[in-house]
Amino acid sequence: MIEIERKFLVNNNTFKEQAFKSVKIVQGFLSTNPERTVRIRLKDDVGTMTVKGKSSGDGLSRFEWEKEISKPDALDLLELCEDVKIDKTRYLVKVENHTFEIDVFNLDNEGLIIAEVELNSENEDFPRPEWLGKEVTGDIKYYNSQLSKQPFNIWNN
Amino acid sequence: MIEIERKFLVNNNTFKEQAFKSVKIVQGFLSTNPERTVRIRLKDDVGTMTVKGKSSGDGLSRFEWEKEISKPDALDLLELCEDVKIDKTRYLVKVENHTFEIDVFNLDNEGLIIAEVELNSENEDFPRPEWLGKEVTGDIKYYNSQLSKQPFNIWNN
Repeated sequence: MIEIERKFLVNNNTFKEQAFKSVKIVQGFLSTNPERTVRIRLKDDVGTMTVKGKSSGDGLSRFEWEKEISKPDALDLLELCEDVKIDKTRYLVKVENHTFEIDVFNLDNEGLIIAEVELNSENEDFPRPEWLGKEVTGDIKYYNSQLSKQPFNIWNN
Repeated sequence: MIEIERKFLVNNNTFKEQAFKSVKIVQGFLSTNPERTVRIRLKDDVGTMTVKGKSSGDGLSRFEWEKEISKPDALDLLELCEDVKIDKTRYLVKVENHTFEIDVFNLDNEGLIIAEVELNSENEDFPRPEWLGKEVTGDIKYYNSQLSKQPFNIWNN
């Protein structure tokens, strides 16, 4: 499957009042190579393993393969992952006919908030709520795989 | 699961007459880091994804997690793997109550033949057929993940 998504910084916390759901996510990486990342995720009690390929030139689309795994398997595999785990709360906000996923990062990435919207085509139009900030689509330093090695709290902000 | 196995070079081809089965294997790696290898394998028409941790100090036991995946998924993921694919024929030979897996490598690893036997405990006794050569258990250069980066045909033999 090829995934098309655009990624943005978030200006303020007003999105939280509009959220219809929130979920706790812990994830780690067996490979952080941007050509072939391998992610282990526990989303509440549901485990997944996800492989992503490298982005297209414009950073918009990316090969993605995902399979559900059991919680005990996810915990075993998280143990094996590279050092810094990603710990975040994901809020889901529906704006018109699009759902934004907004990740509020904890621990080493505290202070970082990123919104993503998935699109059906690269040209698809989508709403711009007032809390939506600067676009960072395709900027590798905002990949979760990179945030697990170079977390936000060591950036020179 | 923790896997205990011992690995040997093979002296000659007489094991082939004793084999009760042979199977064609193509595999690649999403991660070749010995701390957490991620292998994609197609064994005849059956796909698997396997994660292995690093070996114990003596090289005998190693964390292993495996899941079956579809053939189309395996082919997609093999596309994404690091450069050199492993292509080999595996022969199964039963000697007394142990089954040896003997891999005859093709392509970039042509000339290399490795036998493996799986054990229930690190002290378990097992038969030594006359074709069984030098033990190479725990020698990282014989890991398939390493053979996919440093294949046998570029070693200084």
